[in-house]
Amino acid sequence: MTDYDAELHKKKMQKRKELQTELVSSKTETKGLVMVHTGSGKGKSTAAFGLVFRNLGYGRKCAVVQFIKAPEWQTGERKMADHFPDLLEWHTLGEGFTWDTQDKQKDIASCAKAWDVALKLLQDESIALVVLDELNIALRYDYIAMETVLDGLRNRPAMQHVVITGRNAKKELIDAADLVTEMNLIKHHFEAGVKAQKGVEF
Amino acid sequence: MTDYDAELHKKKMQKRKELQTELVSSKTETKGLVMVHTGSGKGKSTAAFGLVFRNLGYGRKCAVVQFIKAPEWQTGERKMADHFPDLLEWHTLGEGFTWDTQDKQKDIASCAKAWDVALKLLQDESIALVVLDELNIALRYDYIAMETVLDGLRNRPAMQHVVITGRNAKKELIDAADLVTEMNLIKHHFEAGVKAQKGVEF
Repeated sequence: MTDYDAELHKKKMQKRKELQTELVSSKTETKGLVMVHTGSGKGKSTAAFGLVFRNLGYGRKCAVVQFIKAPEWQTGERKMADHFPDLLEWHTLGEGFTWDTQDKQKDIASCAKAWDVALKLLQDESIALVVLDELNIALRYDYIAMETVLDGLRNRPAMQHVVITGRNAKKELIDAADLVTEMNLIKHHFEAGVKAQKGVEF
Repeated sequence: MTDYDAELHKKKMQKRKELQTELVSSKTETKGLVMVHTGSGKGKSTAAFGLVFRNLGYGRKCAVVQFIKAPEWQTGERKMADHFPDLLEWHTLGEGFTWDTQDKQKDIASCAKAWDVALKLLQDESIALVVLDELNIALRYDYIAMETVLDGLRNRPAMQHVVITGRNAKKELIDAADLVTEMNLIKHHFEAGVKAQKGVEF
């Protein structure tokens, strides 16, 4: 790199820095966010757990409610609750996939039970972050009414963050959310015959 | 729901269960994966930290190398290393964004230093998961040669998982990866004037 190139790079970056500073200073509000992770790719629940990781780092209380996963299924993420008994509440309240239960009434009942737990968390202002894992699945099959969920979100503490995961997020939820990210699959190891592994999928 | 509907639902789910069992049993291989989180949406690094969270739950060793973020920038995720001194190694070795340093030679030198640390981790089979955070940025600007990175990945322990994050993942890396997820922005609170907040962005 010549001196001229180095100088040109510096000038470009100075200009970019000015724009960046302007952009950042235009954002002033702080508030509890409703975040939705959807799409058919990997990373929806995983990114929610990454937010838990980040908040635990600050010593903030977090809670997770899992609407579909069943308690028999051991996961690395759930074991983390043992490390943070005062900061992390973990409720795995599903009955497994719809094709495991094969019983719609049972699915509806377990979702209703999970929502009761979720609602208590959404009324507790000591909790900085609530993860409603795979709630989108329950909403998609109308196991829980959208209006019930939107009500719970609207009435929660002003600074509480909520993450809702699961594919096929409904339009009403997207409209109510502050952040919506779609995780899309570009390439997946399952297609190459690799199975679900500890530490990757669970 | 009538008895007839309940029966119909059950039959459909039994059929689906059969297909699911067949699909799962066709996947038999286990291996260390190269995972790439790219796209312009939120959640790339966050999902990588979610994988760290999951692996720590199993008591597995993890390591993070940050290629762009500078050590002055305090984050919740980095504080987690204090909680797991024997399991989590954290190296924040960047110099900040290109528009902060305004010095290309400095950026290249800091990336080379970070890669040296990364390479040692990629040769250590006691480490189950290595996160190379924002390595895609360094690759995009040719601060590190693609061949150097691919070599390091090829020669790592067979069961070690690696996650590489950052927008604009290059084609050569996508070709070499086992899993590629693109995080896409559907809606972002920055657009509504909300600023970056503790526990959400950092």
